[in-house]
Amino acid sequence: MKFIHTADWHLGKLVHGLYMTEDQAYMLEQFIQLVEEEKPDAVVIAGDLYDRSVPPTHAVNLLNDILFKLNVEMKVPVVAISGNHDSAERLSFGSSWYQHHQFYLQGKLEDSFKPVTVGDLNFFLVPYAEPATVKELLEDPSITNHDEAMKAIMGKLEAYINPDEPNIFVGHAFVIGGQTSDSERTLSVGGAECVSSHLFAPFTYTALGHLHNPHALSHPTVHYSGSLLKYSFSEATHKKSVSIVEIDEKGVATRTEKFLKPRRDMREVEGYLDELLDPSFYKKQETDDYLKVSLLDEGALHEPIQKLRHVYPNVLHLERKVDWMDAKKKQVYQTVQQNKMSEVELFEIFYQEMTTATFSDEKKKWLEEIVDEVKKKESVTL
Amino acid sequence: MKFIHTADWHLGKLVHGLYMTEDQAYMLEQFIQLVEEEKPDAVVIAGDLYDRSVPPTHAVNLLNDILFKLNVEMKVPVVAISGNHDSAERLSFGSSWYQHHQFYLQGKLEDSFKPVTVGDLNFFLVPYAEPATVKELLEDPSITNHDEAMKAIMGKLEAYINPDEPNIFVGHAFVIGGQTSDSERTLSVGGAECVSSHLFAPFTYTALGHLHNPHALSHPTVHYSGSLLKYSFSEATHKKSVSIVEIDEKGVATRTEKFLKPRRDMREVEGYLDELLDPSFYKKQETDDYLKVSLLDEGALHEPIQKLRHVYPNVLHLERKVDWMDAKKKQVYQTVQQNKMSEVELFEIFYQEMTTATFSDEKKKWLEEIVDEVKKKESVTL
Repeated sequence: MKFIHTADWHLGKLVHGLYMTEDQAYMLEQFIQLVEEEKPDAVVIAGDLYDRSVPPTHAVNLLNDILFKLNVEMKVPVVAISGNHDSAERLSFGSSWYQHHQFYLQGKLEDSFKPVTVGDLNFFLVPYAEPATVKELLEDPSITNHDEAMKAIMGKLEAYINPDEPNIFVGHAFVIGGQTSDSERTLSVGGAECVSSHLFAPFTYTALGHLHNPHALSHPTVHYSGSLLKYSFSEATHKKSVSIVEIDEKGVATRTEKFLKPRRDMREVEGYLDELLDPSFYKKQETDDYLKVSLLDEGALHEPIQKLRHVYPNVLHLERKVDWMDAKKKQVYQTVQQNKMSEVELFEIFYQEMTTATFSDEKKKWLEEIVDEVKKKESVTL
Repeated sequence: MKFIHTADWHLGKLVHGLYMTEDQAYMLEQFIQLVEEEKPDAVVIAGDLYDRSVPPTHAVNLLNDILFKLNVEMKVPVVAISGNHDSAERLSFGSSWYQHHQFYLQGKLEDSFKPVTVGDLNFFLVPYAEPATVKELLEDPSITNHDEAMKAIMGKLEAYINPDEPNIFVGHAFVIGGQTSDSERTLSVGGAECVSSHLFAPFTYTALGHLHNPHALSHPTVHYSGSLLKYSFSEATHKKSVSIVEIDEKGVATRTEKFLKPRRDMREVEGYLDELLDPSFYKKQETDDYLKVSLLDEGALHEPIQKLRHVYPNVLHLERKVDWMDAKKKQVYQTVQQNKMSEVELFEIFYQEMTTATFSDEKKKWLEEIVDEVKKKESVTL
């Protein structure tokens, strides 16, 4: 048996004011191709299909189209849950109709923890839920955090676990504690959000969503697939993938990562403006990528973002590495407040603020002459 | 063949700040019962299932539950389109899966105008669309208003009409022009919103949504079902119903109205406050109804809304029939601006503003004495 584990598509995501819908559609087309090649018995989407409870309509259309291709046209069973970004209610709409096509979409956490069976695999679907929701649903007042909530859910699931069959847990949570680390200690550090990976011991494989890094957790059977795309510059070093999971006859899961190529990568670039604008540099680059640029230049730069975007059209964020203005600012502003100044004095302050060069006596003399000349002309024309 | 025609459920509707969800659920349960009794071959919902493009989740849950009961549990085919209040895209999500259960939900107007067939009936589903949308979709630059748009759509539908079978049009539009009126003239009066009923001549029956009055149009084959409930006081005199439509062997449609009883009626009440608060009056009333109250009293009333709600808890709107303040206001305010006045003078103005009685010399004298007395006490204690 084989299934593909993916999560955190975040359709409708805005990154720095830009909708990622086209990039997502590009990735999902490759995903469809991968499914065609791999011919899995199921596709598992472990939450955060959308980026928000009310996604924009282009995201709604995209999800509808992709799921339709996968499930109706290609007849691949789909198993999905809602994440913390999805609206459980809105995502649930229609799920009763989907089941007929082996599209199992669990939006709301429900009292029934009976698994859905696809081929020989039992999928236990546990959508994201706040501890307070679990507390109310299971009528267990002792639940105060995510770990206790998950423990209580596990207590309900146990009755349905057949140890002779492959049992797959599908969840959306912040799970910590690998094989080597002291998970209890990490858990107490991690806080109320965290769930211990020990809880998933009864399962052949645990397909998680929530953390965007496919290597967020190092555990033999509990895995994050990672997000579909890099969704922030903090993810720039991630290598995004989807997981192909095969369960052999002995009930052992093997996970292989498959890398899809994004339409545009998301990267951080650091350097001097001239350097970045030099063809010998940028011709070796994918200049269409989504970039965060850190400039090392000191002093004033004229319209650096426009110049950069001429070469790198998708600069999303620009920052200056050297805080060159800060030291001088105070001194200058104090001066301004104390005296009423001449044109030349004002220019000197402006010069000092905008450049790192010295406003020499020579420059000063030259400016004084210009100011005098202009003033004379003014008195004539007025 | 028999089907039930309903429309304009407007789930998620707010009326005077109050969600109608419980009232809607109450009506829809009766609707389910009616379907159980009538055993129609299909249920037709002619648009505005929701009241807005992003309905509240309780409305989403209600629609999901009702459609699930009807279509999955009771196995009744459902034919539905989106109205101007629905989001075509959001409502469309999942519709490809629904078809397997004979739940035909047409959210977006599409290039294909092929009917869906349920039993012997051909349903032509035309969701609400702006003329500009139709213009673009059909690539017909001559379309400038709703009538032209519908005419163009009819041109596309024609190819699929089999005159030997019952053809049912399901639409959401402002259709005018009955059998007796000069519809062309009415149309020119009605403006760009209006569609002539003549256009629907090829159909055995036209099931419309949009106008909330089931008698908005008087035509032998073109009908509004009206809305599920009264949704504003302008609808207080409507008698809401759903339509049972039977098509006989000769292909002739007969429509019967079925009246469902709302949890609370929506009514207008007019009278004097004392009269409305008199048990001999209100004991004959359904005091729980949603009410617009018009008071005939002149003069000031102390907390009339609180008093009314004590008897009629669901007063949604209160207005005074007599504009008793208006005439005096001007005069009084002018006086206030002109002089600095004594306590007694100020009270006189207040008295005149709040009552219809005369501020007699006797009253004036009495007040002067009180003011003097208070002032004396003040000077002692200060």
